[in-house]
Amino acid sequence: MEQILIAGKWQASLESTGSFRAHDPTTGDAIGPEFPRSGRQDLDLAVSAAAAVAAALAAAPVERIADFLERYAAGIEAAAEQLVATAHAETALPATPRLAAVELPRTTGQLRQAAQAVRSHAWTHPVIDTQAGLRAHYAPLRKPVLVFGPNNFPFAFNAVAGSDFASAIAARNPVIAKAHPAHPATSQCLARIAHKALLEAGLPGAAVQLLYDFDSSLGLALAGDSRIGAIGFTGSRGGGMALKAAADAAGIPIYAEMSSVNPVFVLPGAVAERGPALAQEFFASCTLGSGQFCTNPGVVVVPTGDAGDAFVAAASAHFAAASPMVLFSSSGQRHLADSVEALRGAGAQVLAGTAAASGPGYRYAPSLLGVDASTFMRNAQALQSEAFGPVALLVRADGDDAMVAVAAVFEGNLTGTLHAAQDGSDDGLWSRIAQVLRPRVGRLIADKWPTGVAVSAAMQHGGPYPSTGHAGFTSVGMPASIRRFAALQCYDQVRDDRLPPELRDANPGGVWRQIDGTWTQACSGLRR
Amino acid sequence: MEQILIAGKWQASLESTGSFRAHDPTTGDAIGPEFPRSGRQDLDLAVSAAAAVAAALAAAPVERIADFLERYAAGIEAAAEQLVATAHAETALPATPRLAAVELPRTTGQLRQAAQAVRSHAWTHPVIDTQAGLRAHYAPLRKPVLVFGPNNFPFAFNAVAGSDFASAIAARNPVIAKAHPAHPATSQCLARIAHKALLEAGLPGAAVQLLYDFDSSLGLALAGDSRIGAIGFTGSRGGGMALKAAADAAGIPIYAEMSSVNPVFVLPGAVAERGPALAQEFFASCTLGSGQFCTNPGVVVVPTGDAGDAFVAAASAHFAAASPMVLFSSSGQRHLADSVEALRGAGAQVLAGTAAASGPGYRYAPSLLGVDASTFMRNAQALQSEAFGPVALLVRADGDDAMVAVAAVFEGNLTGTLHAAQDGSDDGLWSRIAQVLRPRVGRLIADKWPTGVAVSAAMQHGGPYPSTGHAGFTSVGMPASIRRFAALQCYDQVRDDRLPPELRDANPGGVWRQIDGTWTQACSGLRR
Repeated sequence: MEQILIAGKWQASLESTGSFRAHDPTTGDAIGPEFPRSGRQDLDLAVSAAAAVAAALAAAPVERIADFLERYAAGIEAAAEQLVATAHAETALPATPRLAAVELPRTTGQLRQAAQAVRSHAWTHPVIDTQAGLRAHYAPLRKPVLVFGPNNFPFAFNAVAGSDFASAIAARNPVIAKAHPAHPATSQCLARIAHKALLEAGLPGAAVQLLYDFDSSLGLALAGDSRIGAIGFTGSRGGGMALKAAADAAGIPIYAEMSSVNPVFVLPGAVAERGPALAQEFFASCTLGSGQFCTNPGVVVVPTGDAGDAFVAAASAHFAAASPMVLFSSSGQRHLADSVEALRGAGAQVLAGTAAASGPGYRYAPSLLGVDASTFMRNAQALQSEAFGPVALLVRADGDDAMVAVAAVFEGNLTGTLHAAQDGSDDGLWSRIAQVLRPRVGRLIADKWPTGVAVSAAMQHGGPYPSTGHAGFTSVGMPASIRRFAALQCYDQVRDDRLPPELRDANPGGVWRQIDGTWTQACSGLRR
Repeated sequence: MEQILIAGKWQASLESTGSFRAHDPTTGDAIGPEFPRSGRQDLDLAVSAAAAVAAALAAAPVERIADFLERYAAGIEAAAEQLVATAHAETALPATPRLAAVELPRTTGQLRQAAQAVRSHAWTHPVIDTQAGLRAHYAPLRKPVLVFGPNNFPFAFNAVAGSDFASAIAARNPVIAKAHPAHPATSQCLARIAHKALLEAGLPGAAVQLLYDFDSSLGLALAGDSRIGAIGFTGSRGGGMALKAAADAAGIPIYAEMSSVNPVFVLPGAVAERGPALAQEFFASCTLGSGQFCTNPGVVVVPTGDAGDAFVAAASAHFAAASPMVLFSSSGQRHLADSVEALRGAGAQVLAGTAAASGPGYRYAPSLLGVDASTFMRNAQALQSEAFGPVALLVRADGDDAMVAVAAVFEGNLTGTLHAAQDGSDDGLWSRIAQVLRPRVGRLIADKWPTGVAVSAAMQHGGPYPSTGHAGFTSVGMPASIRRFAALQCYDQVRDDRLPPELRDANPGGVWRQIDGTWTQACSGLRR
């Protein structure tokens, strides 16, 4: 049985409630060693060990935190071959380009951006009021952050390496990572590199811990443990909602990303101008990574009429010609089949693809469903449920008013997209739909497809409930993502030498600070 | 029966579940007219009317929003005499200086700071990534914000005039104000001025609505109504927790301020250096406004020994000499009596004052309780319960370690204060206590008393759970308080003319924006 990373070292599970193995998604065969499913004692030790180092981590020099993040990034690069091979075996995601050329560099890039944010103090958002003698900034929670990783990004959203992890560490909080059980060996490999980097950087070993899995009842108890400072979660609506309820009841901030259908509107001018090209791009976006992206285009609204028919025919041809695609797990395959059945039960028709699971392993046929706008609006709740995989629902809207009306029934989503004509003929409709769609999505996208989330300070990878739990936060993009794991702290008449470095009068590092309403890298004039 | 302000006009309650009157706290006599207690139909109409104007308000020119806020401030000043007289009659707070010279100017100042934040777009925090083509900012929720006002600030935290109100309007959201039933005529008078200013500014009449009271079961249903965008609440722990649970279950962000005992540490050097002066200041801070402040010093930790004894004797003398003070309501009087009984039951002794309610009206004797550190730590939960009124608990700590140990048992509070010697003799202990206290409080205060909350960009009037629901937000201080009522929204490759003004390349107003990591008031170089 493999060891867990807990209380500063690799050791056997204190109390496992069972074990599990990874599976090769292409065959369904179990692969790799046995990993323990952690019991209550493991969870309790993880929390107490993390809590015990929280103050030391909060007080650690920022250079040491940045050093850890950069050593970790370098360690990942040094082990890239093994990591890619392991992740490929556990997820069936293409080794190249996806894992080796896209996701791994994205992961190391995030860690390095986090290091940069730590050094620049940019995430602490210092505000100084020299007249009132008040200084405020975002500061570490001084409590452990619990991170639940999803199945779909074994590196970039891994609980022990991804954006939530990097953000929580950048805010100088210890992390308790709960790996996704679909890729335990990948998570283990990452955690080994992290642990080594942590010790080399001179940080407490218990600042990063890894558990592979535990029963959901234990997870709910953990999410409601008042020793936890905050929670990051990426996964299903059902899992997220249950954790959110547990965390809410204990007053613990939880940042949960919980599914999205990412509505796309192909406006009449666009479909007339470049329908076949859009159909090709749509198919590529919808089936990238077997469709297992948070920002997968799940519902596409297309006008009725000849040009719209041509778009649908072209898209259907792409879906019909595609072979079944490999999903991450048998449960993912089952959930997708159930989701598609639910969509059909609510009135959706299969336009292309067999809409069926198949073997070997966890395959599903890329499939395009269709429904008319009035049926969609009548059964909006059921028809905007996420079908996680290479499946999309086309909604055919008869006229501009119908497109606007469809936009109005969407609940909170991560993204919303409009494709418009280059010649300006869609401009009026663009405005009408955008106004309705804007408050319903975190990111409004023009003339490209939603898959692909840049790690940028100007990113919003989040959105209104229920796509996430709070529309004010993003899980991707430094430094904003870091502030999720921080407390706003004010100092009132506190002596300069007792202040955190970034709030002192002197500002040798040129930290960007808002002083009396002005953003500046200067010192704060007043000497006290 | 008085009219409510609903759906854009003053009109009779559609369905009242009863009526109530204000009371003169000095006598207990009912005063003023009958106000309706709103039933379900009122609440439903308020939500639908607010939802109907939310998009228009979000799209309103910022100049019009700012104009409303400034007209409202001017209207309050023009009606100052009547407002002060009404609030004085309903709350018994001193007309001068408190209401006329402190709270009213603070209220108009907040409204004008909100107007300034609206014009400067400072609260929207624009971030531009020119390379990635991404632009993000905080934007209106386009849903109604529900504000529950407390009893203790009839102007500055009034649901229809205070900080939550000004913040929600500045973010261009409609407000449904639930007045505190202890001062209905004051709230009515404010709402009349607000309504007039709203129409003069050319904004939708339903952007501001006022209900005087409703049953708590209806309040819970309203807090969980998915048409609501966010909730601001200031009040009791019990009320806040119930509303938070309802809002959480519906995924509605709620910013609840829910009591705080604001621990104060008088360090050994300080008590030796200026004990009697500190005792005088403590008494004044604790009994200001009859002790009915969110940041009232409720627990004061004082060393044992001669100097500490002298501090206690001096403080006791002040409390013993004070006459009973008038509270806001009979329920406040009853709650305070119950709270003091609970403290006594948990081991606190009465050191000074009769610790008793008295008449006429809603009076309570300023009282000082005391307990030793070990009892405090043993019964920490019970002994750090808020007693809302002119009552404080002294904790006597025997030595530095005991003081540090006491600091470690506090739950989340709005403020924490340390009084230290001028000669540096407390510096070592200051650091030890501050490190323990820092993560437990929103604002760390040095060498002054906690009452008094400056309206500053560097303020944190908030704190860790359970003092509030989320340690990352403040309810006082523009522009941060505004961002509570906003969504983070990103634009991805969106054409310049389709962007909100503060995200466009051109920046004629000199809005502070973060462009490619640099804060600047310049245009964004890139033309697309």
